[in-house]
Formats: sequence, structure tokens, C-alpha cells
Amino acid sequence: MPALDLFPWATWSSLVSVAARGLTREQAFYSDPMGLRSFREVIASYLRTSRNVRCESEQVLIVSGSQQALCLAATVLLNRGDEVWMEDPGYSGARNAFKMNGNLVRPVPVDGEGLQVEQGRRLFPAARLVYVIPSHQYPLGVTMTLRRRLELLDWADSNGSWIVEDDYDSEFRYVSRPLSSLQGLGQRDRVIYVGTFSKILFPSLRVGYMVVPADLVDRFARAREASDIYPATLYQVALTRFIQTGGFARHMRRMRTVYSERLAELVGCVERDLAGVAHIEAADSGMYVTVFLPEDIDDRSFCKEAARRGIELLPLSGFYRGEVRRRGLILGFGGTDLKQIRDGMAVLKKIL
Amino acid sequence: MPALDLFPWATWSSLVSVAARGLTREQAFYSDPMGLRSFREVIASYLRTSRNVRCESEQVLIVSGSQQALCLAATVLLNRGDEVWMEDPGYSGARNAFKMNGNLVRPVPVDGEGLQVEQGRRLFPAARLVYVIPSHQYPLGVTMTLRRRLELLDWADSNGSWIVEDDYDSEFRYVSRPLSSLQGLGQRDRVIYVGTFSKILFPSLRVGYMVVPADLVDRFARAREASDIYPATLYQVALTRFIQTGGFARHMRRMRTVYSERLAELVGCVERDLAGVAHIEAADSGMYVTVFLPEDIDDRSFCKEAARRGIELLPLSGFYRGEVRRRGLILGFGGTDLKQIRDGMAVLKKIL
Repeated sequence: MPALDLFPWATWSSLVSVAARGLTREQAFYSDPMGLRSFREVIASYLRTSRNVRCESEQVLIVSGSQQALCLAATVLLNRGDEVWMEDPGYSGARNAFKMNGNLVRPVPVDGEGLQVEQGRRLFPAARLVYVIPSHQYPLGVTMTLRRRLELLDWADSNGSWIVEDDYDSEFRYVSRPLSSLQGLGQRDRVIYVGTFSKILFPSLRVGYMVVPADLVDRFARAREASDIYPATLYQVALTRFIQTGGFARHMRRMRTVYSERLAELVGCVERDLAGVAHIEAADSGMYVTVFLPEDIDDRSFCKEAARRGIELLPLSGFYRGEVRRRGLILGFGGTDLKQIRDGMAVLKKIL
Repeated sequence: MPALDLFPWATWSSLVSVAARGLTREQAFYSDPMGLRSFREVIASYLRTSRNVRCESEQVLIVSGSQQALCLAATVLLNRGDEVWMEDPGYSGARNAFKMNGNLVRPVPVDGEGLQVEQGRRLFPAARLVYVIPSHQYPLGVTMTLRRRLELLDWADSNGSWIVEDDYDSEFRYVSRPLSSLQGLGQRDRVIYVGTFSKILFPSLRVGYMVVPADLVDRFARAREASDIYPATLYQVALTRFIQTGGFARHMRRMRTVYSERLAELVGCVERDLAGVAHIEAADSGMYVTVFLPEDIDDRSFCKEAARRGIELLPLSGFYRGEVRRRGLILGFGGTDLKQIRDGMAVLKKIL
């Protein structure tokens, strides 16, 4: 959950008002299934600069969020019964999108370097697609190493398989400059890049985007048209202005500072309050952190007890589809201020 | 195309501005995949009163338009390879939704009473679903008779098949009160009712709704979640207020008058300018009318010639998938004023 109370609502709502009052005939009527031209240009430019994505605006498809992007990728790229590699532990929303398309979702383990490509090759050699979050794997928080990225791109190239790169929270990286995208690293066009505004602005905006290979633009446009014709225009217009007038960049800078303070506080609390029992391995980006627990602690019971005391956590073991390898707690800190973090950690200490 | 210049933009944009400024934390965050509770209540009440739909608000699912509604219905109700009856001539957007789901779309002829249920039974007895527009069939403009409606409901009941009722422009009926929906006529829950705000407000709003049988609500909610999580909230909030404050009903009443004048003008022009050649059979509702041509006139060439002279028409023969039975022109008059209608018809007369 992002820190909704720190979002510049006044600026944003006046941009929305201006867009609503000034909606042109063209903007009110049916238009391009890929989205508004001006918005796609702004996004392409942003992705080239900040995420090193190789793209022209023609390749940008505006969607209602990463979930729709995954459904479209599955529809266009896969046949029923095709196998898909999924990080294990991994994001269940992605699993649902591929399952709805009739694909067979195969769990591939993740270690400290990211998805274990060699395991994937060995266990499910026929896979046609892999879904990954290389910048900040959910829920382990691992950043995929360069070696693994090259290995994954090489697998996709040599197999003619597809990579769907979900980059949903890469904007918030605190220890160094954001890594460049997997898409930008590939030499051939085997990567579908997916991003969203849900975490930077707010989820009910329902605006995300995907970058598709140039030679697949027409097929994606047709699939989008058959799915829901085209995206609503109002928020596209308002977001274009929000980015162009600098409000978007200002908000991101501000939130980077806020989130990094919250993360530091949370890490400090874990080191002090849960010392010797729980520990954190990756704490360099995003809006959540994973706290690992010893194997003999039941993380599901732990989370139930926390919920009874008013703290919502997710147990790491619930994210596995194959063998449960690790136990822990997923702590979201985006919408939680420093005092709430300290108070919450004191409660977790008691439970532990 | 609706008459966008007559839409109360000032009223609407101030409702949007108020909604944007007042977006609550709950409205900004993730919420029910079915849509906002208050909006669904308003729609359920509107549909019960004006369309005689039997529903509770729990059965109302907010979608981005009828296209998404069809995709969800296909996903939830059908398996790959299942047969679907489609009116012939019919709406290609619907065909695309079912084809994308891997269904086999079967054309069933339409006569002056609507879809020929007996033909469907005979030609494609195994069909699991039928897609119909009973209020105002597109593109023939036929209103399905009560006899056919009962026949269709009986087929669905006895076969355990589903009816998807698309009611996209039923609000605009000029000669009598709107007919009640097919959904409201059925004794068992075999009908999925679909409606949209695209034609009453404007298309880029991307807000529609569907009413699903009570015992399928959970399955539809899960399919919606896997497709794109949930609908954006801003327009739901603004539309709820637009309906509650009477702006919606006022606009509909006004447009009913405007559209019926335009339709009368158009019918008059056809009777005068195209007398003895072209004729109209149904002119009682909606925002388009079908002008039938003799069999020896090539309606596609006619429309190409019209396009060269700046008039956009659709040829009836292009809507058939089975045998082309009739030729004609689809004339949209929603966004065309009286003078444009007269001038345009003079051009068509010359071409003819």
C-alpha cells in the first residue's frame, strides 16, 4: 500500500478537473486500442531514460494495470496448455492470469541471485514463457543478478520463449541508482515489459502500461480491442500533464526519501527487537521487506496472531507452490509511518 | 456515435472534479472486484425500474463496457470449443470476444421477429450460449417479439444453455415505453444482462455493467479479479451522483426528444429522396436506422462512394457470416443534426 496521505491530492485533482472540463470530442469518442498517442510518448520517454527500456511510443500499450497486461501477454503469446515458468515463491495474481488462459504454471525456485534458470531448464524444458520480477522479486525481495539475467535472456533466445518482466516497484530503489531493465539488456525482442502507476500514485487509478516487441504491436492491439476496446481517456490526459509538469518526478523523489526512512526504521527495529531470531537479507528497494524466521516457527500462525492484534502481515510460506523452503513475514511499510512501525514491531516482538 | 455536443459537460465535469477532490482512502485503494457498492445499488434500482431486470445490487458487476462483459461471460460460462449462437447479421465485436475465448461462433439467421430460434435448434443443437440484442438487434434494427423471447428462454432452460442479453441502446425508444428485458421475463436464471453508459454519456468513459445470476457472483468476481482486479473508482463515484441528482434522467429525456426528431427527419428524407428504391422497416429506437436496398445494388461500393464524398456509412452485407440475405446501409444519426441529415441524404440520393 502506498502512502496515500502523502500523495499531492490537490495538484492531482486539479489536473483531473482540467482534463474533465477540457475533454475534446476526440478524447470522448472511441480511439486507439493502444491508448492516447501523447501519453504513450511521455511513457516511452520516461522508460528510456529511467529504466533503460528500448522502445518507441508505438510499442507502448496502455492497460488498466499489470494484471490486464499479463492477460494480454498470455492471450497473444501462448496457446492453451503451454507451460509457464513462475518464480517460486511468487505472485499469485500472475499465476491466476496464466491459469485463466489455460496455461500450465510451473514453479521454478528462486535463490539469492533470482530465478534459478538452470532448474527451470532441467525441470520444465518446454516452457514457452517466464514471468519474472527481476528488479525486486516478490515476495523474497531479491534483485536478479546480471549473470542470471543474461542466462535468462539466453534461454529465451535459444528456445524462442518469451519473458514477461514485471517492474511494478522498481522506481523505489534506495541504495543505488535503479538497475536497468531486463528488456533493455536483451539483444532480441523476447521481453514484454510491464509497469504500473498503482504504487506511485494510487491503485484505483487503474493505469499501467506494457512495452511489446515492434512486430507484435498489431496482435496486441487486436487482443486489447477484443478484451475491452480501449482505455478510458481522462486519467491518461491528467497523467500526461502530471508527468510533463514535473509533479510526478517531484512526488517520486519525495516518496523515495520517505520510504527509505521507513525502511531504515523497520530494519533497525528488526535488528533490535527480533535480534537472534528473525533477520532481513535484502532491504534496498520497494515498499515491503521480507523478514525471515527460523524453520520451526509457523509463519501462518504468527500472522494470524498478528491480525488478532491489528497488524496485517503475510506469511512467506503461503507464496510457495513447490516445496516450502523458507519461512518469514512480508512487512509492507509504504503506508505506515515511523511511529506505527515502532509500535507494530513491539507487538511482533511480544508475539515472537 | 452519441450527440457529444449536447452532453451536459459542465455539470458532468464538476461532478468529476468533486469526486477527484473528495476521493477517500477507501476509494483510492484496492476494492471489490465487482465495483463500488453504492454505484451497484443505484444501477440495480435503475434496472429494476426502467428495464424490469430482476436483480439485487450483489448481482451487478461494473465493467469497462459491454466488450469486457462478454469476455467475462465467455470465461466463466464456456469451455474452449463450446458453440455459441450469434445473430446473423450481427455485431462483430461480440464475435471477437467469444473467438478469443476459443469458442465456435455459429451464425443463426434473424428475421422480422428476431433471432430464428428454430433454425438455431436445427443447425447447431449443441450450443451452450446465445448472444442476442433483443431490444434493437444490430444491424437490422429488429425488436424481438414476445413469442421469440419465450421460445429462446425455453431453449435455454431445457438445454441448460446461457443467454447473453446485450441491451446497449434500449434507453432510446421513441414510439412506446421501452420493452422489458429478456432477463426479467425468464423464470430461471439463464440470462446474463449487459448494459453500458457509452451511448448515453460518452464512449471514453469506459463504464458498463452486467447482471449475473446470484449463484454465479463468486465465479464472476474471481474472473474479473484475474482479468484486471477491479474497476477504477472515480467515474463510478461521479456517475452515482449524476444519477442520484437527476442529471442522468434529464439528459436521457432530452436526448430521447433530440434523437426522435433526427430519426423522423431521416425517415422523411429516405421516403422522399430514395422513394421506390430504398426503404426502412424499423424506426422506433436507438441511434441508427437500417435502410434496405434492392439486391442488385452493391452496398459495399455504395458506402465506398459515400466515404469519398465525406459520409461514413456501413454496408449491411458486411455484417453477415452466413449467406448474405439482404443489402442495405446502416445510418447512424446520433451525432448528426437535422441539416447534416438533409444534406447527407441529398448526397446519397445522387449516388443512388
